[in-house]
Parts: sequence; C-alpha cells; structure tokens
Amino acid sequence: MSTPAFPARTTTADIELGTTLQPKFGPDGLIPCITQDVHTGEVLMFAFMNAESLAHTLRTKKATYWSRSRNKLWMKGEESGNVQHVHELRTDCDQDVVLIKVEQTGAANASCHNGYKSCFYRKLASLDASSLQLQFTAERLFDPATVYKKK
Amino acid sequence: MSTPAFPARTTTADIELGTTLQPKFGPDGLIPCITQDVHTGEVLMFAFMNAESLAHTLRTKKATYWSRSRNKLWMKGEESGNVQHVHELRTDCDQDVVLIKVEQTGAANASCHNGYKSCFYRKLASLDASSLQLQFTAERLFDPATVYKKK
Repeated sequence: MSTPAFPARTTTADIELGTTLQPKFGPDGLIPCITQDVHTGEVLMFAFMNAESLAHTLRTKKATYWSRSRNKLWMKGEESGNVQHVHELRTDCDQDVVLIKVEQTGAANASCHNGYKSCFYRKLASLDASSLQLQFTAERLFDPATVYKKK
Repeated sequence: MSTPAFPARTTTADIELGTTLQPKFGPDGLIPCITQDVHTGEVLMFAFMNAESLAHTLRTKKATYWSRSRNKLWMKGEESGNVQHVHELRTDCDQDVVLIKVEQTGAANASCHNGYKSCFYRKLASLDASSLQLQFTAERLFDPATVYKKK
C-alpha cells in the first residue's frame, strides 16, 4: 500500500493538539465515521472504518467502510453506483472519530440503501409533544428493489 | 419521567420506514449521537447517549450525553456553560444513531473541551500527498484552564 501505516498513539497533548493523524481504532478494530455532503453539510450517513478501509479511502479518495453485517470491506457504491468522492477528512479532538466530506456521484445521489439521499430522512415530529412520532423529511430517490440485486 | 419509555424494536420495515422512534441501544446500552450546529450544519461533536440521557435530552431540550470516561450522565455545559439547545432530533435508517441539531449558548460557543467551537478542528492537510499531516482549521475560543476547574 502507498498509504503510510497509521502511527501508534502517543501522548494526550500530541493526540489532541498535534498535527499527525493518529486514529484510535476500538477493541473491535473500528473507528466511527461521519459522512457529510461537501456542498450542503448534510449528514449523509454514519458507518465504521477499520484501518484497511481508512487506508483504502485515503489511497483512492473514494469512501470505503467496513461492513459489520457482511464482515468485509465496503467501497460505497460498488453495487449501487453511488460512489462518494472524498474532498476532506477530519478527525476530532481525541482522534477516535473521523469525518469525511464527500461528493456523491451516480444516478440517484443516494447514500441510503432505502433510496434516500441521506440515511437521516426522519426527524421527531415535535420536540414539545411527549411523543416519539417521526416524520419524513425527504423524498425517495430510487426504489431499492431495482438497484440492489440481492434484496 | 414525562418522556415515554422507548418502545421495543419491531420489524425491519417498521424500524426503517415507520414513524415511531425505536432507538437501538448497543450491548453497552449506548447509541452514538452526532451533534450539528442548527444554523451552519457544522458537525460540533460526536458522543454517546444511553436511554436516560436521550430521555433527558427530549424532556429538557438540552443535549445530554453519557460520559463513558466519567460513567455518568453529562448535561453538556453544566460545567462550562456552553449549553446546547436542541432544535431537531433525527435518526438514521436502522435507528442505531441519533443526530441532533443544536444552538450553542454560553460565552464561548465552544463544544470542545479544548476550546474550539467544534471538536473537528483539524483536517488532513492534503488528500493527495501520502501523508498523515493535519492542519488546524479553527481558532481557539477559550483557554480550557480558565473554564474547567479540574484539568
């Protein structure tokens, strides 16, 4: 791989205020990743990366996650065509989360397997009512049955 | 509590395309939470909630997390004064993440204990160079030593 291996974590001061990416992978080898639309700031999805998928993301500039359900590397869009081109990668203060800003391509511009642009397509209808009622905030962009072979 | 208990999870169809909040708390009782600035869309922080902190957030409309390091309920701003007023709460397709949109108050408008508005104050300097060099993207808003008593 041309991407350098991720360095061992050093001191708190270095991790929090230093200038070297030292990602913390959890006991399961994973780091959470927040994915934002580079243009609108909309949060598109939340997933996990392992060291291999983070390195793959950096090398290809295409968002690549680790699928916990399929237990394999998951290059976003390899099946649906909705590839996420990475424009920016950030980490948080203690470097145990990454945030990527992406431009989605593909016919549908949908990151969600349910056919929505963002996975966060529902919000609580009211924060004032003591209710857990959700309302949809987006239109479906595609019918999943026509995009994914296995469904 | 006036907030209803969270319902048991039902079918995949109901969870993914239904209109009732059915949050999935992991084996550790926690659900990840992404916190965005309601005005700018900037991701401010990433933390965890348990059922109690999610209920507290809904009841008070002030972001309340679960501190894994201190093992206690953590109402954001109780020490620093930088309270996060919740304007919107979303969940993702499989309802195992929540996203809140907040307005921060307090002198500094800083969500990060290091004194930055957002915890994501560093980005990779270049996605083209095979380098893990980070660069700062924000100015410090306060000196942590003057805000937190224990440091």
